[in-house]
Amino acid sequence: MAGRRHVEQRMRDVCSRFGFGEVVTPTFESSELFKLRSGQSVVEEMYAFKDKGGREIALRPEITASVIRFFVNDMSTMPKPLKLYYVGNCFRYENPQSGRYREFFQLGAELVGAKNPETDAEVIALAVACIRSSGLEDFKVRVGHIGVLKSLVREEVEDPETAADILRMIDKEDFDSLSDLFDARTLSRKLLDRIMTMAETRGGTEVLDALDGSESAGYLKEVFRVLELYGVDDCEVDLGIVRGLDYYTGMVFEVDAPRLGAEKQILGGGSYTLSELFGGEPVFSTGFAIGLDRVMLALAAEKSLPEMPLLDVYVMPVGDEMRKYAFALVAKMRAHGLRADVDLMRRSMSKNLKYAASAGARYAVIVGKSEMAERAVTVRDMSSGEQRKVHADTVSEDISKLLGH
Amino acid sequence: MAGRRHVEQRMRDVCSRFGFGEVVTPTFESSELFKLRSGQSVVEEMYAFKDKGGREIALRPEITASVIRFFVNDMSTMPKPLKLYYVGNCFRYENPQSGRYREFFQLGAELVGAKNPETDAEVIALAVACIRSSGLEDFKVRVGHIGVLKSLVREEVEDPETAADILRMIDKEDFDSLSDLFDARTLSRKLLDRIMTMAETRGGTEVLDALDGSESAGYLKEVFRVLELYGVDDCEVDLGIVRGLDYYTGMVFEVDAPRLGAEKQILGGGSYTLSELFGGEPVFSTGFAIGLDRVMLALAAEKSLPEMPLLDVYVMPVGDEMRKYAFALVAKMRAHGLRADVDLMRRSMSKNLKYAASAGARYAVIVGKSEMAERAVTVRDMSSGEQRKVHADTVSEDISKLLGH
Repeated sequence: MAGRRHVEQRMRDVCSRFGFGEVVTPTFESSELFKLRSGQSVVEEMYAFKDKGGREIALRPEITASVIRFFVNDMSTMPKPLKLYYVGNCFRYENPQSGRYREFFQLGAELVGAKNPETDAEVIALAVACIRSSGLEDFKVRVGHIGVLKSLVREEVEDPETAADILRMIDKEDFDSLSDLFDARTLSRKLLDRIMTMAETRGGTEVLDALDGSESAGYLKEVFRVLELYGVDDCEVDLGIVRGLDYYTGMVFEVDAPRLGAEKQILGGGSYTLSELFGGEPVFSTGFAIGLDRVMLALAAEKSLPEMPLLDVYVMPVGDEMRKYAFALVAKMRAHGLRADVDLMRRSMSKNLKYAASAGARYAVIVGKSEMAERAVTVRDMSSGEQRKVHADTVSEDISKLLGH
Repeated sequence: MAGRRHVEQRMRDVCSRFGFGEVVTPTFESSELFKLRSGQSVVEEMYAFKDKGGREIALRPEITASVIRFFVNDMSTMPKPLKLYYVGNCFRYENPQSGRYREFFQLGAELVGAKNPETDAEVIALAVACIRSSGLEDFKVRVGHIGVLKSLVREEVEDPETAADILRMIDKEDFDSLSDLFDARTLSRKLLDRIMTMAETRGGTEVLDALDGSESAGYLKEVFRVLELYGVDDCEVDLGIVRGLDYYTGMVFEVDAPRLGAEKQILGGGSYTLSELFGGEPVFSTGFAIGLDRVMLALAAEKSLPEMPLLDVYVMPVGDEMRKYAFALVAKMRAHGLRADVDLMRRSMSKNLKYAASAGARYAVIVGKSEMAERAVTVRDMSSGEQRKVHADTVSEDISKLLGH
């Protein structure tokens, strides 16, 4: 948890520097809210049940729906854009495996009330800064625009259900089924080739030049231009991103940590309109969610997790008489900001030293009778074993200095 | 949330200084776990349901049971004492009212593996330091020992059910029902008087002198002696604390914020043995839980909540041409640690100033064409309206200085 909170706090600091404010929404809501927002797959995996009042409720499978409900209920008259972020747990009844848990943690952000290349770039820049702040080095940011593929498929395929099936298969990169579908519906092979070429379009912004005249491609170029102004220059174009959820309307983006293998996606996001589902005026939003569990796994795979020692000092009295000095001393150390513990088990000296080592204390302070007679204590460096006598009244300051505070 | 997280972070820092490490447990667990641990009233208020695998699960009504289960499953061989804290949400199907919500937040700590006056005092000292760190000034800490009343009632009342009823009525301070019960069971009035006297025993440690020879009273004196060494001198004795939950065995304590009226209790805790319920060896523990929602209400009642401005700077380009400079500038400010936002709506100057004011920005930075020609921008103090020209390359440093960073 120390490592997790460290990463979480760094991401929170980034959100705050980008002018995003935190919101918290309830852990469960009316099941209906999530049904409106999410695809069928999410609904099937929901922890849904009736409360004692007979209401159909569900543990949240994701948090965006709740944030937008909150916006529609309580924040719709506030000046736009609203910049909101959240950190919370979500629940899906899936087969647990590495990087896929029934309770999992997300940090996400929503920029509500505007849609233009600047807002999209702002949200991507925030997402990249969050991931970078975690210390992760090996990750890939891919940015696409759902409009490019959607407009091609919808223009050429008359049946809307078939069009939706095609988009879903592209999202899952299930190109075999896609090919079968084209055969079954006797759709033109040439169209399939065009779709495949587009879905596989990746690279720098120059790949967009081939799409000259496409509104979506032009928009995406603008997004990349603003990203460059922000100093974010490590995103690549990926027109194959469709995203599992139906409601994205424009820019979409994903971040992968390649070392995680099959469950490598650590972030997904894009722009959408959603609020009209909950009775509000249609409002454009852009957002993302980071899978915090996967970020932690990716950091572990990179060995980028910082060491987090939990204890600075362990104070051990030598004999019962010294106990009172030890308690007064540890209280002073804590007031001084040190993370300090004291023998609470009336242990022997050797057992105390063993405990201090296993607790990971950086220093032990030994309160002995003869030293205390001259208001002195012994400070022991737990890694080197070096010991020195220090005045009891300044030991907090001395240890702070040793710790480089 | 900014205020809440500020208070939460201060309490986390205190836990960390006391050598406590954070644990997180699942939001739901087997219903059985909570049934074993809690009184019937908690079970009736549980959000319990079956998951898709037919398991009886419940949203946690409290977190101690989960921490002890975690201890028994995974930490029982670790060196004692274990010092664990948690921050999390709990769920009870109650009638919502001020300070009583169906989803509510607790910060709690458990010291597992030892029981003596030092461990009890350590936990009380931590609890008081947490409450104090929130900024709350008007609160009362009452410390008792459940053994004093329990041994009296159990010695004198043969029927264990009647004895339990008596203790429950004392806990609820329902002295009318207590008197009725004594009449109904024809128990001696003299015993009732003794119980009432004891339940109403409050004050400094000198009130314990009347109980000379009571083991529990002697133990409590020891706890107060260690608290004094810790510099915690604002606790009073209250022998009437019984606590709603059955499993406390020794020292018990509560903290009230008197300004909250009926729902004034903001913390409850004590020492207990619990782990044998979950198949572990009996292990002594001492812990507490703070009601974070009530702490926030109490701070609001005291007007002790700090102002938490969310934005340091708002950058506004004057005209489209200046936009690119504005984005580069805001990126530099954020990298410098400032909480900075930029116009994403292509607003006019006057609308931008209005937005900056409503967003609570401390400074606005105006990027105009003629100033930019000499790499300068205008910094406007949003409260005084004062403006001055500053070099664009040093504006982050200048504003940091103005903010006193």
